[in-house]
Amino acid sequence: MSPFSLPTISPVTDVLRNSIRSKIDNKTKPLGSLGDLEAIATQLAEIQNTLSPELKNPKLILFAGDHGITDEPVSLYPKDVTWQMVLNFLSGGACANVFAKHSHIEVEVVDAGVDHDWEEVSAKPIERKIRKGTSNFLKQSAMSLDEAKETILSGINLLSEDRYSSTNIFLFGEMGIGNTSAASLILSHLTGIPLKKLVGRGTGLNNSGKENKFKILSEAYERTGKLNDPLDVLSEFGGFEIGMMAGAMVGAAAQRKIFVVDGFIATAAYAIAFALNPSVKSYAIFSHLSEEEGHTVILEHWKVRPLLRLNLRLGEGSGALAAYPLIELSVKFLNEMASFADAGVSNSDSK
Amino acid sequence: MSPFSLPTISPVTDVLRNSIRSKIDNKTKPLGSLGDLEAIATQLAEIQNTLSPELKNPKLILFAGDHGITDEPVSLYPKDVTWQMVLNFLSGGACANVFAKHSHIEVEVVDAGVDHDWEEVSAKPIERKIRKGTSNFLKQSAMSLDEAKETILSGINLLSEDRYSSTNIFLFGEMGIGNTSAASLILSHLTGIPLKKLVGRGTGLNNSGKENKFKILSEAYERTGKLNDPLDVLSEFGGFEIGMMAGAMVGAAAQRKIFVVDGFIATAAYAIAFALNPSVKSYAIFSHLSEEEGHTVILEHWKVRPLLRLNLRLGEGSGALAAYPLIELSVKFLNEMASFADAGVSNSDSK
Repeated sequence: MSPFSLPTISPVTDVLRNSIRSKIDNKTKPLGSLGDLEAIATQLAEIQNTLSPELKNPKLILFAGDHGITDEPVSLYPKDVTWQMVLNFLSGGACANVFAKHSHIEVEVVDAGVDHDWEEVSAKPIERKIRKGTSNFLKQSAMSLDEAKETILSGINLLSEDRYSSTNIFLFGEMGIGNTSAASLILSHLTGIPLKKLVGRGTGLNNSGKENKFKILSEAYERTGKLNDPLDVLSEFGGFEIGMMAGAMVGAAAQRKIFVVDGFIATAAYAIAFALNPSVKSYAIFSHLSEEEGHTVILEHWKVRPLLRLNLRLGEGSGALAAYPLIELSVKFLNEMASFADAGVSNSDSK
Repeated sequence: MSPFSLPTISPVTDVLRNSIRSKIDNKTKPLGSLGDLEAIATQLAEIQNTLSPELKNPKLILFAGDHGITDEPVSLYPKDVTWQMVLNFLSGGACANVFAKHSHIEVEVVDAGVDHDWEEVSAKPIERKIRKGTSNFLKQSAMSLDEAKETILSGINLLSEDRYSSTNIFLFGEMGIGNTSAASLILSHLTGIPLKKLVGRGTGLNNSGKENKFKILSEAYERTGKLNDPLDVLSEFGGFEIGMMAGAMVGAAAQRKIFVVDGFIATAAYAIAFALNPSVKSYAIFSHLSEEEGHTVILEHWKVRPLLRLNLRLGEGSGALAAYPLIELSVKFLNEMASFADAGVSNSDSK
């Protein structure tokens, strides 16, 4: 494999900050009255370094991978659901497809490490399979350190492919039975927040199921002891879809492109990307607060204010897709609303 | 004027509740994982009495009116902004226009009581003017009891007009400099919540401006003493746009049509509609939590969970419009997502 070197991410500068503020404040509305949408408009304008930002050819990339930890009773659904859902994405029947279609967003599915062959199917995912599922992290590392590096680089390289050249906003989603377990461990190691606060119901465990999941994950935590390096964390707990998404986030930021962070799992991918290079932060939009309990803890820890709080906990980019129209509205008010002068409306200082 | 009789509102029955639940639970996703969107899908299906609800020809109706209370220092903007913004709506430059266009929603502007003549302009609002602005409610009733009745009936009758026959979802917005003042008094009288908790910054008053506004509104409260009847409250405090919107809400519910409640002012209109007939409740979707402080107090008092919390405080239906894509997604997941059986995906009980 290639040597592990990450692309440079330029920090977003605030040279346009005052001009953007002034453009927003001259729109026919009370100052600040579009709240969080004004913050999104400002972020987009700064990233694109223009007073008239645009969203071009948005793509949803769904990363799928399997998890050896599903040998343990951590999820309500059988592992086969991962590949079955990949086929559901490819045939257009999943929530992600329905939501993406609504906003004219193209959906791509990447096999980062699904335990399945696709020979028999006509529509296939994009194959970037590292391996057919991670190892059971209760007993051993989920993947080797080399595999962890390869996973990250594969995500970075994916975004350099030609078909994305005209895209300037990415939404990332995931599918992987068992991946809330990996996400909880990743987030606990990289933030220092106790594991207990980050273990939730996943796809719908009851109280005793959740308690049992916590016991299993605690044991896995003890196996390694506290880790700090994002590659170590990825290697110990996986999964391939989480690491590849983290790489894609780094890749997007390196290209000065916005990416939309979905829920709990995507937030774990973001934690890895942020640990690799904190400059990814300027390029991220946090779409929603998941119902998965740990998500609140993490977003509060980071002082992040997500756009939506709808008690979603579906994954597959559904929250990012649900927030996308708000991002569109942010761009549109900035570009299309009349100014006080245009519209002949009196401003507050005229009183 | 015609005698004041309100149309009948049929309560929404739950005969389909189990079938809707079953349809949702068979979609390829973890149970309950679409959170608040599942609640909206259920509400729409129940209102339309079908497992496959639709949103047809959505309309945003903007009610505009002036307020005599603007003789007092209660707002940051001069009263002329009301008619100036009506022209801005008609020429397509306001936030409401931009957001509505994004969702292919037609915008109509109704002059419920603007202090302006429209002779000189080519595009005119729909004229339902009760009077050119309410009287200053610090000194006297904002309107007569007959005018209050006429205002409500005018809103009800508006929605019976032919051009709305194919519309099955309404968004209501408002424009009226000074109308947070009227809204605070309406909400305090109809809910019993102390006025102090319901007086906010409006379009952006500073602390002393807000304190002064509270003093003025307290004096207005003392002029009448506590009122309970929604017609009395409307008559004492206005405004024409608020009362007409309340009538439109009653009219929508009477036609078994969904309406989307915008922010603080629209919530005051809803309070009047609810006091006239509590059955409006089943037909209402609360779109967002406004940054206007009193809105949190009211929605918590009613135990209402709005779709969005974006710190918006613009009015003109902007919050309802921002939430509209989420309502569309709710309908679409219910109608378009594959079931476990369709997609050949294993359900949790297969494990």
